[in-house]
Amino acid sequence: MITEILATGYEILTGTAIDSNSAHIAQELQEAGLEVVRHSCVGDDLDMLVSILQEIGGRADIGIVTGGLGPTSDDITTEAAAKAAGVELALDTTALNAIEALFKARQRFMSPSNKKQAMLPAGSECLNNPVGTAPGFCLKIGQCVFFFLPGVPFEMQRMLADVVMPRIEKIQGIDKDVRIVKTIATFGLTEAATGERLDGFASEFPDLILGIRAKFPEIQVKLYGRDKDENSLGQLMKKASAWVVDKIGRNVFSVEGKAMEVIIGELLGQKKATLAVAESCTGGLISHWLTNVPGSSEYFIFSGVTYSNDAKKKILGVSSDTINRCGAVHEETVKEMAQGARRIVGATYGLATSGIAGPAGGSADKPVGTVCVGLATDSSAEAYRFNFPFGNRLMKKKIFAIAALDVLRHKLQG
Amino acid sequence: MITEILATGYEILTGTAIDSNSAHIAQELQEAGLEVVRHSCVGDDLDMLVSILQEIGGRADIGIVTGGLGPTSDDITTEAAAKAAGVELALDTTALNAIEALFKARQRFMSPSNKKQAMLPAGSECLNNPVGTAPGFCLKIGQCVFFFLPGVPFEMQRMLADVVMPRIEKIQGIDKDVRIVKTIATFGLTEAATGERLDGFASEFPDLILGIRAKFPEIQVKLYGRDKDENSLGQLMKKASAWVVDKIGRNVFSVEGKAMEVIIGELLGQKKATLAVAESCTGGLISHWLTNVPGSSEYFIFSGVTYSNDAKKKILGVSSDTINRCGAVHEETVKEMAQGARRIVGATYGLATSGIAGPAGGSADKPVGTVCVGLATDSSAEAYRFNFPFGNRLMKKKIFAIAALDVLRHKLQG
Repeated sequence: MITEILATGYEILTGTAIDSNSAHIAQELQEAGLEVVRHSCVGDDLDMLVSILQEIGGRADIGIVTGGLGPTSDDITTEAAAKAAGVELALDTTALNAIEALFKARQRFMSPSNKKQAMLPAGSECLNNPVGTAPGFCLKIGQCVFFFLPGVPFEMQRMLADVVMPRIEKIQGIDKDVRIVKTIATFGLTEAATGERLDGFASEFPDLILGIRAKFPEIQVKLYGRDKDENSLGQLMKKASAWVVDKIGRNVFSVEGKAMEVIIGELLGQKKATLAVAESCTGGLISHWLTNVPGSSEYFIFSGVTYSNDAKKKILGVSSDTINRCGAVHEETVKEMAQGARRIVGATYGLATSGIAGPAGGSADKPVGTVCVGLATDSSAEAYRFNFPFGNRLMKKKIFAIAALDVLRHKLQG
Repeated sequence: MITEILATGYEILTGTAIDSNSAHIAQELQEAGLEVVRHSCVGDDLDMLVSILQEIGGRADIGIVTGGLGPTSDDITTEAAAKAAGVELALDTTALNAIEALFKARQRFMSPSNKKQAMLPAGSECLNNPVGTAPGFCLKIGQCVFFFLPGVPFEMQRMLADVVMPRIEKIQGIDKDVRIVKTIATFGLTEAATGERLDGFASEFPDLILGIRAKFPEIQVKLYGRDKDENSLGQLMKKASAWVVDKIGRNVFSVEGKAMEVIIGELLGQKKATLAVAESCTGGLISHWLTNVPGSSEYFIFSGVTYSNDAKKKILGVSSDTINRCGAVHEETVKEMAQGARRIVGATYGLATSGIAGPAGGSADKPVGTVCVGLATDSSAEAYRFNFPFGNRLMKKKIFAIAALDVLRHKLQG
């Protein structure tokens, strides 16, 4: 099944925003066994939209279009779809009911322009959007079945998974191969070093495809398999996954592609342990990650984002002497920070970071990219120093944060 | 001048990598006054490449192509370009000399496959690559002048700036348009309500294009303008921007598209004021945002991420009585949290959040999506309650965090 992806909107066309939707859609479609042959992007221009929809309609079997379904006057994808298909726009009662129900549930006033979002091309099928006001729709143009989705990534992803992929699977019918994609999440080796460790993969597992992908700050090892028989493919994937883990060792933190903060939560939960954090250079990012996990209040008690030395002393009880003698970025300081954080709230573990995220603040012996990580228990305190001399401020915060959580992971895994 | 951008390669086509090159190129071209009308992406497939190059050759004046110039056998863009133009590949001595010189300078052995990179379409002009082995080239296909560049972002960007843009400016001659894009960042109105407030824009400013984009949790108003005369366009954009601000009012937080945390930093800096934060439901996200801004240590002192009631009492000094009487998510509690945070580190302002990010934890009178925001100064404490009953846990954290910062912004702007 020949598939094309079309992103619409001036924001992407002019480069104001990077189009991440098309990559997400391409991955999902590939994993479902479809052949994506082209991505395109045009602006919110009626003639352009009509012409490219008709082009794709003459070339592809399946088309996925994102963007331009909003309530404002510059959102004209629906109008263009109708024109390309040679039909009129008509009020779709399914869409109208869904929009009205959403506004009611949100206790928000529905403005007249939202009603525009219920005007769909005649003959199209309304696709429910469970998380936003813009419903999508499915419409045949030429030989191609198009799925029109909103451009907001969160809404698009949800609709793609919930309403589009099941319909595509129905179109694909019984010829469908089973596809399994396995993601093994690692931290601490470079992309190149990871690749070298896995050098013999292709000869060991000729029926699988290996991908190594930097999903900063992790490196993900991806195994792609397809087969008619789900069972034997599952066995093969299991064997391959074990082979990869054997080669990479303890740098693997999840064989199910889970995020580091999820793994930390699971490990703490298994031990019925709690965590307190003291963050300097990571500035709240560790806490933010940890609290993104539902149920994290079970084990995450407190984080002190102590950006100033004064706050390190007042809140965490770091001694003035240590800060004066060693500076804020030092093994001794992060040990005291970690101890302070766990002590004041009585947590099982205390984890602390202090470093230099830049762009300013570096020196010859503590260059930008230096981070110290402290880890305290009721009976011990340990500290580590790393240097990550690459990336911008946000990237540094991310790699500092995952490095700190990785120290805790090694401790929890014994 | 009609311009198109083409990204090549299976990595982008399959979504393994996100195409950031096209956005970069689009921005550069827009700024130089060219009209970008379409982006496309195809894989490393000879027939596909030839066909899309000929398509673009029939539509555009300028084409920028990235990727597929490397030394390995899956890099076939050069071959496709020759085929599309109906010419042969020939050894280009300029290219060969450049590649040989590079390997010599890097003291690296030049493998035979690198010589392939010196085979360019007959009649093309070699474009020097100062930072990599793959030279680019310029070739006319159909009516369109194509610039072929490597896909490595660093190399592509350097060559675009150094060798492509000067050539494009020569082609443009005096016909060059100036292009201005203005972003006005707002929070608090829906996308639809924003659009309705700006209803008269098109008749008021017929020469400009208006875009309204949800960049969750903000709504951005974008003004796109182009003209021969930079001065008069600048004046027009200024007038249009003032018109938009007049219609949207205080929901505008930046007329330069800055992030909320940057605006907060500027406002605190102007007042030489400092900030302490107490976060419950936002879990560190406010601190993370604030500390993403370089120099934030000037005004951001401390954040207590007090996820448990116990931490709220122990760290921030919230009274047990208040928590027992009102619960953690309550105006009184966040007032005490905000007062506590500012008091213990002596900050000018204290800002606090407590709410229910879900998915669990909601009740009839405090449903998931409820957030209380407290703001304390040395002489006052105020609190607000909002409800944002949409989005997942992370989206709730984001809208809670920006809502809290927006409360502070209103205070700082008096």
